Amino acid sequence: MRQRLFECLRAAGASSRADLARWLDCSPASVTSVAAELIEAGLVRELDGPREIARGRPPVSLAVAPDITKVAGIKLTDDAHTAVVIDFSGAVLSEATMPSAAHRQSLTATLDEAETLLDMALAEADLSRADLSWVGLGLPGVVDHASGVARWSPLLTQRNTPLREAFGERIGLPVAVDNDANLLALAELWFGAGRAMTDFAVVTIENGVGMGLVLGNRVFRGGTGLGMELGHTKVQLDGALCRCGSRGCLEAYVADYALVREAQTALHWDRDTAGSARALLETLYAEAKAGHKAALSIFNRAGRYLAVGLANVTELFDPHLIILSGGEMRFDFLYADAVLAEVEALTRQTGRAPPKIEINAWGDMVWARGAAALALASLTEQLLGETRPGGAP
Amino acid sequence: MRQRLFECLRAAGASSRADLARWLDCSPASVTSVAAELIEAGLVRELDGPREIARGRPPVSLAVAPDITKVAGIKLTDDAHTAVVIDFSGAVLSEATMPSAAHRQSLTATLDEAETLLDMALAEADLSRADLSWVGLGLPGVVDHASGVARWSPLLTQRNTPLREAFGERIGLPVAVDNDANLLALAELWFGAGRAMTDFAVVTIENGVGMGLVLGNRVFRGGTGLGMELGHTKVQLDGALCRCGSRGCLEAYVADYALVREAQTALHWDRDTAGSARALLETLYAEAKAGHKAALSIFNRAGRYLAVGLANVTELFDPHLIILSGGEMRFDFLYADAVLAEVEALTRQTGRAPPKIEINAWGDMVWARGAAALALASLTEQLLGETRPGGAP
Repeated sequence: MRQRLFECLRAAGASSRADLARWLDCSPASVTSVAAELIEAGLVRELDGPREIARGRPPVSLAVAPDITKVAGIKLTDDAHTAVVIDFSGAVLSEATMPSAAHRQSLTATLDEAETLLDMALAEADLSRADLSWVGLGLPGVVDHASGVARWSPLLTQRNTPLREAFGERIGLPVAVDNDANLLALAELWFGAGRAMTDFAVVTIENGVGMGLVLGNRVFRGGTGLGMELGHTKVQLDGALCRCGSRGCLEAYVADYALVREAQTALHWDRDTAGSARALLETLYAEAKAGHKAALSIFNRAGRYLAVGLANVTELFDPHLIILSGGEMRFDFLYADAVLAEVEALTRQTGRAPPKIEINAWGDMVWARGAAALALASLTEQLLGETRPGGAP
Repeated sequence: MRQRLFECLRAAGASSRADLARWLDCSPASVTSVAAELIEAGLVRELDGPREIARGRPPVSLAVAPDITKVAGIKLTDDAHTAVVIDFSGAVLSEATMPSAAHRQSLTATLDEAETLLDMALAEADLSRADLSWVGLGLPGVVDHASGVARWSPLLTQRNTPLREAFGERIGLPVAVDNDANLLALAELWFGAGRAMTDFAVVTIENGVGMGLVLGNRVFRGGTGLGMELGHTKVQLDGALCRCGSRGCLEAYVADYALVREAQTALHWDRDTAGSARALLETLYAEAKAGHKAALSIFNRAGRYLAVGLANVTELFDPHLIILSGGEMRFDFLYADAVLAEVEALTRQTGRAPPKIEINAWGDMVWARGAAALALASLTEQLLGETRPGGAP
């Protein structure tokens, strides 16, 4: 109940006790009682309202206390790392970015960079590590949030890296780790389009295809914590080769690297003289816009496969809302009306409205904000979990 | 807490308070307090144990009270309906079966048959409707458990049938409705292989391909209640035609009707002279066993697509256990070691053990037992929900 009330308040913003009781379908008396506990714990505060106006039921609002503590979020990628420091209400206090020295590194080198970046973000906000209560760390790959172990990541030279423990020891603060897609789901839940919703799906398309699912205000990570790998669901038996080694994975048709692979053929582009994959994709996109048929067919096919993925998410999870989310949503073809129409065509007609599909381009800092939301979620769980509802007989 | 303790006790069978406290990770004092409420409500009883043996901590076990009430479960199909009456502990008191008059009927004709069948099952157990507290009704199609509406079913001539309300009025008892696959998930949860597990997936292959997912002891039905349609996830863009009208659905490669379609080609069988689809499939199966290459290739391909479906369930839901469940599991080829090996090959290697895959053939009455479990689940929710944990300040 404490957790539910807190989550409701966090998502809805400042709210009256009466509204909270209605939303949570419980008595105003129990809201008052639980709110008192949260206020005493410093997690929630009362906002001064016009007490005079309505006597007998003063419209004093409750809100999450912004200043109880601060957290940081760090997102590692293979070319640049980003970090933010935020307060308890989610307001950003500072940001920092640094290039990564190599695509793939040892744990020590990775932690060196993460530590440096954290201190840069703290300095920017005139804070020190002692001001932080938690740090969230996100990276691509197979990351086990529960155990804190990165089972595999394209950034790390070793498998089964105890990342949470190692970084926690390094910086002397509690750390939570997770993979990219879950960070985005958390960013949407705490700060974005999912704020007012208890259940939604987030699909992200960049280097790979990721998915995060929020059920009842929590990120659902699958039965053993490594689920929601939409990018590696098979959409074709014996299909295109995926970088995971399997064939027919969704991301082998939709992700950046799949487009790069086809772009080299379409544009007769030789990798040695081509410059970066990003430049190649930008050229491909420009050519498609200018009517280059092969270039256009690459985006069209990728768009149709994306529609298959979204239709499958709909058939299985039946969400009210799917958010296409990420730092950049730069290839319009993938999110064209034709793709959304295809999703509908590929989905059974149940007589209900199909899920809403929203496109949310956040900019590069979204990943770090998601990592900070991960820190907030971990902190909140600790704060609300430690003091149990008192005095069972 | 009442619900969790009750569910734990139901799943585990007779258990001591100390064990319950351990499993639920709470204090023995709170188990004692909640158990007292459940005992007073008549839901749970104490089993006489050898009180003398261990003084100070008497090993009196708790168990779900079998005799508090009875429920019935009815499963409708397009050729025969089945029903069971069970007590609160799940023990079967009687069974009944009747043929359906037509593949597709009006609501009234359907309810006539369901009512007759219910009374047959009651008579068999020497009971009357007054002895029942709830009835569960299952049927294939798009069934909205929450609203009680059958949005579409192959058994009904009309869409959007308010089945729960209509049947409830007809028999004068509370009714719950759901689709097939969720019935199987409930059967596994209450009586089967999922009894001791809080989270697992059930996949069923008969006329169609269905899926049920249990999360935290509850059937998860998707965001708006119509999810888990594994059979209609797309495994091939522009693939085989499915009876839902789309192309490339998993069940268009794996379900009975998909095998029938191919069998007609392989065996040069003309539908007019062929007898039933079931006879055709039995012949196909016999031919495959005898080495008929085309017949074998049909089962092999279906098996590989089934592997794709199971791999996708694994990538997304990451369950500890997948139960292949149903009345009959008659085509061994589909569940061959080669299929299970293919699932593993199609799944990312995360360094963790892949989910266990169990095959559970129950016989025809499993669906009705699942419908009865649905009734039990609804009843329990009502009983545990009505009397809230008392006396909030």
